[in-house]
Amino acid sequence: MSSARDALLRKFAADLGLDPGEEIVAIPQYEPAVEHEGQLFVSGQIPRRRGPEVAVVGRVGAEVDLDGGRGAARLCVVRALMAARQQAGTLDRVRRVLRMNVYVRAAPDFAALSEVADAASEIVHAVFKPDGSHTRTTVGVFQLPKNAAVELDLLLALGAPDLSYSTF
Amino acid sequence: MSSARDALLRKFAADLGLDPGEEIVAIPQYEPAVEHEGQLFVSGQIPRRRGPEVAVVGRVGAEVDLDGGRGAARLCVVRALMAARQQAGTLDRVRRVLRMNVYVRAAPDFAALSEVADAASEIVHAVFKPDGSHTRTTVGVFQLPKNAAVELDLLLALGAPDLSYSTF
Amino acid sequence: MSSARDALLRKFAADLGLDPGEEIVAIPQYEPAVEHEGQLFVSGQIPRRRGPEVAVVGRVGAEVDLDGGRGAARLCVVRALMAARQQAGTLDRVRRVLRMNVYVRAAPDFAALSEVADAASEIVHAVFKPDGSHTRTTVGVFQLPKNAAVELDLLLALGAPDLSYSTF
Repeated sequence: MSSARDALLRKFAADLGLDPGEEIVAIPQYEPAVEHEGQLFVSGQIPRRRGPEVAVVGRVGAEVDLDGGRGAARLCVVRALMAARQQAGTLDRVRRVLRMNVYVRAAPDFAALSEVADAASEIVHAVFKPDGSHTRTTVGVFQLPKNAAVELDLLLALGAPDLSYSTF
Repeated sequence: MSSARDALLRKFAADLGLDPGEEIVAIPQYEPAVEHEGQLFVSGQIPRRRGPEVAVVGRVGAEVDLDGGRGAARLCVVRALMAARQQAGTLDRVRRVLRMNVYVRAAPDFAALSEVADAASEIVHAVFKPDGSHTRTTVGVFQLPKNAAVELDLLLALGAPDLSYSTF
Repeated sequence: MSSARDALLRKFAADLGLDPGEEIVAIPQYEPAVEHEGQLFVSGQIPRRRGPEVAVVGRVGAEVDLDGGRGAARLCVVRALMAARQQAGTLDRVRRVLRMNVYVRAAPDFAALSEVADAASEIVHAVFKPDGSHTRTTVGVFQLPKNAAVELDLLLALGAPDLSYSTF
């Protein structure tokens, strides 16, 4: 059984060409998400679609245009929410989106960083409705892992797990 | 009625040419500040004075000199504290400044990033006295929203609201 | 008496040419670490060995090669853990490593940022074993304080102090 939020996330994932059932796998060095006493930290996500290769590479404002950057931000946030859902069991446990950090790999004169990050914020609002209101910091970086165009991380507040949510 | 901290913040704001009574408005995409279980997250602030335009734009070490960068950092931190005060009701609820992140848009050879961030830390100390001791991370970024010279965000620890503070 | 974790940290510190007994000193503007209600925030650390000068300066992928960048990341994380141990009394109080942020000063075409950060994650795992699994965000920045090649900060979850740990 899937909640309305989980269903919305699956729809966004499918629309972006992601596999909604894909597991965001831990690599040896770090975890996709860590939960501790009501806070869920999600590692920086880059715009992957399926598998390890990065779907959107280059500098926004140069090799990647604004729309491409916004698409990359959507991929990042959907992957971050997939990692969160995987760790939490369901997004219904999310009480609040506390913080989103957005790192845009920017061409020298590209200053529309907020417009890139807005694409991610809009998905958060669509999924969580009022609980999706969040703080955000957006900066333009010089380089990102694997030449990714955007990277994004999240901090969520969780409620206690409700066993009735469990699908296991 | 205004507490000593709130009064100091108003004074710093006025000295920097800000309107001390200005509301830091939420835009559709994200909130200036979010409070959750004793933590207050403040979104990244850029050096605005009045209205949406950015007062200090360019790269510190090139179009903006060190003093200009320090002035930008002061504007950012005062706006961050205005957002915090607005959400918390009064800065008297702040028990500790947990984290300050400072992003300096730097010219290629400008390495005095800490000196820029120090200007913000000094205001935090002046407002909060011992409770203002904080951790800090300062990095030099390639670009910031709207070509801003500095961006800064905060995480504060809050005590429970005391209704006697209320001015409503 | 030193715990196994504290002893491992001392060994890593000595291996890297650090003085394991060095105190990470607060400067006037901010603290090396702040503890609040079970969370320990550590300020951004740059690759210092002994004293204030920075041991690894320049851009990774240009003046500093990948191995040099990885060595810088090790210095940063060991200093961050020294600051944490100093504040917490012992690393035995660490229940979880919640977040690591790694900022790599990158040459224009250097995209192996994760490989640099991995060197820091490996030390965290070696010291904390299962409790060391953590989330991570790695970005490539344009400049760092004092031309440092890498900067790193940490957020740790702490358990209550246990007086039996005390060495004072």
